Amino acid sequence: MLLRTSRALIAEFLGTAVLVAAVIGSGIMAQSLTSDKALQLLINALSTILALGTLIWLFADLSGAHFNPIVSIAMAIRKDLPLLQMGGFVVSQSVGGLAGTALANAMFDRHLFEASQHYRLGHALLLGELVATCGLVLIIFGKVSSGRPMYLLVPAWIGSAYFFTSSTSFANPAVTFARAWSNTFAGIAPQSVLPFIGAELMGGALALVILFLLFGQNPRVSTNG
Amino acid sequence: MLLRTSRALIAEFLGTAVLVAAVIGSGIMAQSLTSDKALQLLINALSTILALGTLIWLFADLSGAHFNPIVSIAMAIRKDLPLLQMGGFVVSQSVGGLAGTALANAMFDRHLFEASQHYRLGHALLLGELVATCGLVLIIFGKVSSGRPMYLLVPAWIGSAYFFTSSTSFANPAVTFARAWSNTFAGIAPQSVLPFIGAELMGGALALVILFLLFGQNPRVSTNG
Amino acid sequence: MLLRTSRALIAEFLGTAVLVAAVIGSGIMAQSLTSDKALQLLINALSTILALGTLIWLFADLSGAHFNPIVSIAMAIRKDLPLLQMGGFVVSQSVGGLAGTALANAMFDRHLFEASQHYRLGHALLLGELVATCGLVLIIFGKVSSGRPMYLLVPAWIGSAYFFTSSTSFANPAVTFARAWSNTFAGIAPQSVLPFIGAELMGGALALVILFLLFGQNPRVSTNG
Amino acid sequence: MLLRTSRALIAEFLGTAVLVAAVIGSGIMAQSLTSDKALQLLINALSTILALGTLIWLFADLSGAHFNPIVSIAMAIRKDLPLLQMGGFVVSQSVGGLAGTALANAMFDRHLFEASQHYRLGHALLLGELVATCGLVLIIFGKVSSGRPMYLLVPAWIGSAYFFTSSTSFANPAVTFARAWSNTFAGIAPQSVLPFIGAELMGGALALVILFLLFGQNPRVSTNG
Repeated sequence: MLLRTSRALIAEFLGTAVLVAAVIGSGIMAQSLTSDKALQLLINALSTILALGTLIWLFADLSGAHFNPIVSIAMAIRKDLPLLQMGGFVVSQSVGGLAGTALANAMFDRHLFEASQHYRLGHALLLGELVATCGLVLIIFGKVSSGRPMYLLVPAWIGSAYFFTSSTSFANPAVTFARAWSNTFAGIAPQSVLPFIGAELMGGALALVILFLLFGQNPRVSTNG
Repeated sequence: MLLRTSRALIAEFLGTAVLVAAVIGSGIMAQSLTSDKALQLLINALSTILALGTLIWLFADLSGAHFNPIVSIAMAIRKDLPLLQMGGFVVSQSVGGLAGTALANAMFDRHLFEASQHYRLGHALLLGELVATCGLVLIIFGKVSSGRPMYLLVPAWIGSAYFFTSSTSFANPAVTFARAWSNTFAGIAPQSVLPFIGAELMGGALALVILFLLFGQNPRVSTNG
Repeated sequence: MLLRTSRALIAEFLGTAVLVAAVIGSGIMAQSLTSDKALQLLINALSTILALGTLIWLFADLSGAHFNPIVSIAMAIRKDLPLLQMGGFVVSQSVGGLAGTALANAMFDRHLFEASQHYRLGHALLLGELVATCGLVLIIFGKVSSGRPMYLLVPAWIGSAYFFTSSTSFANPAVTFARAWSNTFAGIAPQSVLPFIGAELMGGALALVILFLLFGQNPRVSTNG
Repeated sequence: MLLRTSRALIAEFLGTAVLVAAVIGSGIMAQSLTSDKALQLLINALSTILALGTLIWLFADLSGAHFNPIVSIAMAIRKDLPLLQMGGFVVSQSVGGLAGTALANAMFDRHLFEASQHYRLGHALLLGELVATCGLVLIIFGKVSSGRPMYLLVPAWIGSAYFFTSSTSFANPAVTFARAWSNTFAGIAPQSVLPFIGAELMGGALALVILFLLFGQNPRVSTNG
């Protein structure tokens, strides 16, 4: 039991670290290769969703492959995850995210941590972040009889939201915080972090309301009214 | 029963709304990032097909995930959907589409509705629209013994048609109407909407003829002559 | 039986037509949107492989979804297809390809047929064509115990070969011939058609030799020596 | 038995050859089409991962589709592959890689072999290479109860790492060595080969440690502690 929990925590740490390394690293790579901002975002998005898919597949059995405090918190609210374990997961994800930042910066020969000066401001961006996170939680907890290939669906949603939400879809407080410490393409100024996380939490809460509306009390058990 | 129908209507509303938000939002994003029109269309198409795939998967159990009056009408003609429910679906899709337009405009800090000045004219474009819609209906109703992974096939077809049909494949009256109210990349001038919808209806009708030719009276039951 | 054969012929006609329309149409679209040749080829390749995947899925039950004389001939050599039916398939594919050319040209408001002036010359290109076709036949007939998701694998191979073979991977005599009659991005000058088809046939023949080497007399029955 | 082993060696030879041809060929193609380096890398990556997916699928039954000495060595260490066969595989992969280089150069009308002058230097790149290879080995040997669709996951990981590791993810000693002999986009100067291979071996070793940590003595048998 203890061994199993340790492995889940390691999985959340490693998964979030590599996810953040992919997000930040591919942003640095893209910026070094082209001045076209659409191409930069395209490369950033492709690298992120491919990493996300492989990481979810790899770690799903060990920890559920959350890599995201919003997901862990939602599971705790739905009583699918004990509170204490949720706390451990969130810590693992947060520390893992920072490790990922350091790894990306190191791979591109930069200081391990540097505050981003990429300000992301305004209500429009926060609305984008709310929409991105709401959709993510719907995808993860929406009840579908034909199976739940999470390693395809979560990357597909994030990939789509990268382009159609004005915030480019962070949708993850641990990743948002980690991205504050690389002053590169994917960075976010520390001052913008809290508003983003607030919008993400609101998006997650909205998703829980919609889930209740669409699937009733317990989405896992009943399929219709 | 009533609960089930309400949920189906909400699903059609939400699905069409997010689909339109993805189409319009990614167009705005793309235009803000690059002046290369091919890259703009590429980002627009990628975001659309990834959204489409996740939305079909998410809402398939609740409503069949039509998000498209052509599909609902075709199902009614094939007696797979009661007429009254078809009517409800079309209303949900139309209102949902408009909500999606407002959401996309809001996420990018624009007026919620503004008439598009993007004229899309000429017989060649209408032929493209007819081809795109005809293929879509064939994909959805074509009988295939090895299963019907709609959340892969519909996005694949739309993604292909985005580039090879001259109209960039709207293939959906509710989405076409909704796109008239954003004066951005994905917009269509209100004057061009009716001809597009006419071509889409003709494409759907042509598909029903081809389906009869290929699969006989009831494609769902017999697999060959 | 007659009905079944007619439907197979219609399927080969329609499938090849839409495939060619996607190849040529997306090339015209790409050229109209950007002057970057890499982006043109990228859009051309994406549209082609997405169309190929949906068409194979849609028509697999009706005709096997060859859309390619090389595949039909190889099946006849392997005694998986009667000679007469092979002849019918090749005619359907050839006529279907031309219909696709006309459709693409019409969708973009061009003359239905116009000879291409895009010369594709030299032994290096023909070697590319040989490699592309050889790989295609290996993919289609290679025996794999874990199933044969052709609607994924054939597009994946063609998509890869679009970029790494010097010929951009025509790999299909019916499509090659059809592409001679659009003077646009995807065209091929009529004078270059026969050498390309010769290289494709040699690639197919080489594949049959490799298949014998790897899987023995009958790839479908024995899995190892 | 002998026949089976011969076929496995041929499979490793062919698979590595076509993989290298795709890597180098698509790099040459990309460079000839655009001056945008991000687009070059994008086309290079797309062609590589699509080839990788089809090759793994095609040859999985014959040899396990390693195409990579790191994978064969790791299997030998895990006692999943006899030492002698491992030796044969590594030779087949190395010779196959060189054949792939010659094929790519020939398809683009270049000398069959020419030393690359593309120096890839510095500790940051080597860290990237270590991360890319470590992830690859984790993906291949990580135990997952829901199946192991290697033909999706390996290309997804390599595709992601192409963009987020500073080295663009060679992650394969046979491919690294082969890429030294084409003086084109995907080349690597012979002087940089040994450091890259050293980093790859260290990445593979690190992966074995992490696998033990996460899955215990024998990842194939027990699913948790």
